[in-house]
Amino acid sequence: MGPHPAVAAIRLAVRRVLHDLLTDQHASRDQHAPVAQGPHEQPPSPLVLVACSGGADSMALASALAFEAPKLGLRAGGVTVDHGLQPGSELRAEEVVLRLRELGLDPVESTAVTVGREGGPEAAARDARYAALDAAAQRHGAIAVLLGHTRDDQAETVLLGLARGSGIRSLSGMAAVSGADGRYRRPFLALDRQTARKACMVQSLPVWDDPHNTDPAYTRSRLRHEGLPALEKALGKGVVEALARTAQLSRDDADALDTWARQAEASVRDAAGLLECAKLYALPPAVRRRILRQAAIEAGAPAGSLFARHIEEVDRLITGWRGQGAINLPGKVVAQRQGGRLVIRQG
Amino acid sequence: MGPHPAVAAIRLAVRRVLHDLLTDQHASRDQHAPVAQGPHEQPPSPLVLVACSGGADSMALASALAFEAPKLGLRAGGVTVDHGLQPGSELRAEEVVLRLRELGLDPVESTAVTVGREGGPEAAARDARYAALDAAAQRHGAIAVLLGHTRDDQAETVLLGLARGSGIRSLSGMAAVSGADGRYRRPFLALDRQTARKACMVQSLPVWDDPHNTDPAYTRSRLRHEGLPALEKALGKGVVEALARTAQLSRDDADALDTWARQAEASVRDAAGLLECAKLYALPPAVRRRILRQAAIEAGAPAGSLFARHIEEVDRLITGWRGQGAINLPGKVVAQRQGGRLVIRQG
Repeated sequence: MGPHPAVAAIRLAVRRVLHDLLTDQHASRDQHAPVAQGPHEQPPSPLVLVACSGGADSMALASALAFEAPKLGLRAGGVTVDHGLQPGSELRAEEVVLRLRELGLDPVESTAVTVGREGGPEAAARDARYAALDAAAQRHGAIAVLLGHTRDDQAETVLLGLARGSGIRSLSGMAAVSGADGRYRRPFLALDRQTARKACMVQSLPVWDDPHNTDPAYTRSRLRHEGLPALEKALGKGVVEALARTAQLSRDDADALDTWARQAEASVRDAAGLLECAKLYALPPAVRRRILRQAAIEAGAPAGSLFARHIEEVDRLITGWRGQGAINLPGKVVAQRQGGRLVIRQG
Repeated sequence: MGPHPAVAAIRLAVRRVLHDLLTDQHASRDQHAPVAQGPHEQPPSPLVLVACSGGADSMALASALAFEAPKLGLRAGGVTVDHGLQPGSELRAEEVVLRLRELGLDPVESTAVTVGREGGPEAAARDARYAALDAAAQRHGAIAVLLGHTRDDQAETVLLGLARGSGIRSLSGMAAVSGADGRYRRPFLALDRQTARKACMVQSLPVWDDPHNTDPAYTRSRLRHEGLPALEKALGKGVVEALARTAQLSRDDADALDTWARQAEASVRDAAGLLECAKLYALPPAVRRRILRQAAIEAGAPAGSLFARHIEEVDRLITGWRGQGAINLPGKVVAQRQGGRLVIRQG
């Protein structure tokens, strides 16, 4: 008799990602390593880390990694980040370390971070967490860090992006592969949260429910417990899956349009490197606005403060020219039309 | 003292659309009409119709059209569609006709339709309504039909599209200009429902609240009264605006990618007109999948039954080729790979 379907599902998801990692490894070794290698230089087997909060998603992930990694000649390790946001969080982190060791992971460590305030509590905690995971991966020479984000997390991320109203890039959610050199991998992005929880239950893995996840002070928590259930009630049970699929389709679309904009960008500059309004005008609006946005960022406008309405205003210098003056953008960047050219620079 | 801000807002929205219509008219007259025109051949002034249910949105629209059209040398008329779905609906329609006449619209008519069942009650009612509006526009020689959809309707439409999970085209909501020759115009697409309602109130226009709009049997009604409010509670008050902006951005992006796919399509066919897998492989996934989708539709697959998962499966004949067999698509269309070519045809 095979494992419970939920356990089989989480293992399959992790196995696929480990296969991908090994394929990438071989490809890069073939390219970079010396052709001859003596027996004394045999490197240790590659290490894959799991980032684990102790919650159901990442505990399920850790258990699947512990099961699958040795079969593929990989070492499996774990990191838990102590955000120091709740009393007793360091004890909690030590408990997660013990549980990961019990699963057979090695090395396992807890790393404490100081969460700042920039961008709000959720963004600040995320920034601190990824910095700590980056450092841990480098310290241990890990080839990858697995993250336990599920399809439900993805659906929430799409809705959060939708609320920004800033276009399809913000609808594309989390990538299955991200970070420097594709370090972060999300094996559970197509798996629902319920399966992860079930896999923990049938494997008798204790899980910890982060009180932040149910705290209505957090946008994501409100979305999870009120927003999404109400949407499901109105639109039907397939909403989470539809949102996750939207993420993938939007990501591919945004990538293709970014490619187009990069290619078109060179063709709309004159000999002096200035943007020619007539040539910009001839492009599809979606491509033109991406070029304008990129030009503003290159001139020094912070990407995070540059909204769709800013770009629309700059676009009207091209499509609705009636002699309007310079347009002020974030980061003291100024856009103006001069002699049929668009000049975007820091003022 | 000028009009109430809500009344000023609805009139401005309508004035802009009427200006656009006149610009389009002049452009097409310059192209098509004989250069000389005697005084006896003076055509009647162009007619613009408003589609009016008697609800706040379309009553506000009718009042603004009645006010603005004469100032621009246009005639204003109205049509109300009796869907025959509720007892006494024909009396209701006659009441709307009277109200439109009181606003000074001429011609005004009520037109009865029979609502079928195809595609569910909402789709069937919509199909019947547009067929009746098309017929009325042709009968009266109207240059346009104005529709009262607001930004709130647009937000709901985006969420309905999101629930389909079929990509950014379904996120692009309703177009400001649509139908044959751009007949349908939606002046209120950037205006909120509350403004339309307020404009009716301050002009003492009686409005009728369609019981369907609050009937939880209808998806859109559930979305309006439960789904969207819950989303706003979780994500903040800007959600409706963000959804409407997403619609516009998604529409532009989808248009640009469709253009790219159309252009790329010719370059991936061999001398015999067959799709070459190697050339398809080199395209960005977003462009390739659009070409595959279009090829399936041209082979006879009904667009409405062709889902993202179908196209993904066909795409794997290109990106994940391991000798798999023919793939069955809706409309008895079959896709298979043969000798490096992709053959999609009705089986």
